[in-house]
Amino acid sequence: MPHIDPKRLLNSLSEMAKIGGTQKGGVCRLAATAEDKTARDLFASWAKTENCEISIDQIGNIFARRPGKNNNLAPVVLGSHLDSQPTGGKFDGAYGVLAALEVIRCLNDSGIETGRPVEAVSWTNEEGSRFPPAMMGSGVFSGSLNLEKALSTQDINGISMSDALDAINYAGEHLCGNRTIHTYLEAHIEQGPILERENTTIGVVLGIQGIRWFDIIIQGREAHAGPTPMPARNDALIAASDLILQIEDIALQHAPDGRTTVGTVGIHPNSRNVIPGQVKLGIDMRHPDAGVLSTMKKELQAVFEKMRKERGVKGNIDEIWYSPPTIFDAETVDAIEAMATLRQYTCRRITSGAGHDAKYMADICPTAMIFIPCDEGLSHNEAENAKDAHLVAGAQVLLDVALARAGLLNADR
Amino acid sequence: MPHIDPKRLLNSLSEMAKIGGTQKGGVCRLAATAEDKTARDLFASWAKTENCEISIDQIGNIFARRPGKNNNLAPVVLGSHLDSQPTGGKFDGAYGVLAALEVIRCLNDSGIETGRPVEAVSWTNEEGSRFPPAMMGSGVFSGSLNLEKALSTQDINGISMSDALDAINYAGEHLCGNRTIHTYLEAHIEQGPILERENTTIGVVLGIQGIRWFDIIIQGREAHAGPTPMPARNDALIAASDLILQIEDIALQHAPDGRTTVGTVGIHPNSRNVIPGQVKLGIDMRHPDAGVLSTMKKELQAVFEKMRKERGVKGNIDEIWYSPPTIFDAETVDAIEAMATLRQYTCRRITSGAGHDAKYMADICPTAMIFIPCDEGLSHNEAENAKDAHLVAGAQVLLDVALARAGLLNADR
Repeated sequence: MPHIDPKRLLNSLSEMAKIGGTQKGGVCRLAATAEDKTARDLFASWAKTENCEISIDQIGNIFARRPGKNNNLAPVVLGSHLDSQPTGGKFDGAYGVLAALEVIRCLNDSGIETGRPVEAVSWTNEEGSRFPPAMMGSGVFSGSLNLEKALSTQDINGISMSDALDAINYAGEHLCGNRTIHTYLEAHIEQGPILERENTTIGVVLGIQGIRWFDIIIQGREAHAGPTPMPARNDALIAASDLILQIEDIALQHAPDGRTTVGTVGIHPNSRNVIPGQVKLGIDMRHPDAGVLSTMKKELQAVFEKMRKERGVKGNIDEIWYSPPTIFDAETVDAIEAMATLRQYTCRRITSGAGHDAKYMADICPTAMIFIPCDEGLSHNEAENAKDAHLVAGAQVLLDVALARAGLLNADR
Repeated sequence: MPHIDPKRLLNSLSEMAKIGGTQKGGVCRLAATAEDKTARDLFASWAKTENCEISIDQIGNIFARRPGKNNNLAPVVLGSHLDSQPTGGKFDGAYGVLAALEVIRCLNDSGIETGRPVEAVSWTNEEGSRFPPAMMGSGVFSGSLNLEKALSTQDINGISMSDALDAINYAGEHLCGNRTIHTYLEAHIEQGPILERENTTIGVVLGIQGIRWFDIIIQGREAHAGPTPMPARNDALIAASDLILQIEDIALQHAPDGRTTVGTVGIHPNSRNVIPGQVKLGIDMRHPDAGVLSTMKKELQAVFEKMRKERGVKGNIDEIWYSPPTIFDAETVDAIEAMATLRQYTCRRITSGAGHDAKYMADICPTAMIFIPCDEGLSHNEAENAKDAHLVAGAQVLLDVALARAGLLNADR
């Protein structure tokens, strides 16, 4: 069985982390920026050195294909994304892409010809920080998101995804999706504390939590902070603060899997001596069970109505996104567990709290993910980090499962 | 006793409101703009018609002087300001200036020769919207602000106050301040809801609330909203929300005069699926009693420390400004109350929640203010409004008190 080259994998991760690298050791590599282009170019140049055929599709996804014995067979696709949060870490996404590249390098080193083609993919705009929604490239590829709508999405400066991709020369011509994938595998840092706390090397990912996103507007009344007595106020921020604590309670009541986060706050007019007239909140709510997640939504609506009445403010609540829980392919999950065990890595089954490109891929092909621990469970943070041994172990399991799925024979399964 | 001419006063207010008038019925007359010049010119031309001597000082304050029997005596000065907020109302400031002009007109109509000179003043840049800080003209006149520093203040386009005053021909040559004022009186809309709610015509203003401004930083830890279990979080926004409710409580515990406002919120990274790592709050705290205001400051520090411990976050609190409470001259306050009662207007003692030019004048001479109700307590808002009867009543009390203070004899007190 071929082995990952630890030094090569870690060097590649380290080279990639320089692109958009921040002083605090993280990266800022927003989708379709100059930094994203440099990262894409580096990945593509490395893949070309490995004799891969590069193709760019209409949403800018990059596929690096290593041919198999029978190129009419559906490929095994491995990958993740190279874009980051504004204050992101160096492994979130990039690890999955470079572990996929390392798999191809190992196959080349060993002179192994797989039955099926093996492709390393870098999906466009997984983070959605600059162009919402998240997981745009895999969403369009899988047919869950509309290509034209995705391309017309604008960033806060009014630049469209289409123009941004053009500007970095990654508006490709290949048809997006519309082809059969045999298996999709994604290696990723856990982005949570569970594996580290349990001293476990490999997370065998069963699926992804369901997510609901809500926009809340609270409308009070702007007034001068000096002459307006406390009882005469309609302070939108006081109402919002009350609500934020109640939203936290919803998750606590659905422990240990329930999660609620108020991640964004917009306040108007945002002047120290003016009572806030309007507050906007952006809510993220998660649970692996669709039924519980629906209950949590009802609870949110109830605490919102209660807050409106008690605080005498107006406003509304809109659900802007629902992503149902995802359950990964049982056979592929079993294969990951088997390979991790064969390699004598400690492993456990785990549900992903974060969304991943694997979510959309699971809609169209057998899909699963491999998690490795990250320091203190931190991600979406410049301090995000992972141990060398874990990075190598995850890539090794990816290689083993990829090889098993791509086959050594002229497979037709 | 002479009477205000209601029609003349209301017509003058209405003419003045056309200058910089907005579609929503307010005014936009930022300091030292073309609109401010037109308003100043109109005031000066009206005052000249009343045979007043006009003088402009180095910071652009306009004094219209009606001589008395003994022009060596310190004058009684009445006034306010003609500049406005960007979306200001038609009475905030302009009312006090035109009520002062109406006093002079009435004295002329009645052929009354006062003992002391009576001056109507329009102070430069009370709002501070274009050139911070607020109350610049009266601040320099009273010696609290430095003339050169004020003149070098730049607007957001880099234009200095000095150049702006030159451009509108109101960079005067008269020495700013440095002379004795016998009494300063200012009529103003309340800018709060108290008089209207109590159906009271005249507010006898006892002074101006003390103000403390604080900046608070709460430092939690940024992490991914999906995979991070609730107990593993250090959410700066949850801590901030808890604190905001406790800051409100501080004011409620010092009812009815205590005021606390969290007017600004900055959140980092402000991304829906990232647990907020940092929140900045801007606090405005007011009370008319300096001792109570100090107690409230200690309570703020205590709830901040409690929040830090309970929520496991870091951070700090800085006081960035302290403006002590102002107590107006007791004799002048009594005179206002007496005159309002004689005229059979309902009246009550009240503390100003907002700053006014009278604050700086109180440092150098006996000072007091007359408040009238405004609709729904609204100001710094184009919808600001006041009732004709109240506008007339306030001017009448201003006339009566000015006359009492200026005297009919060759006073030397």
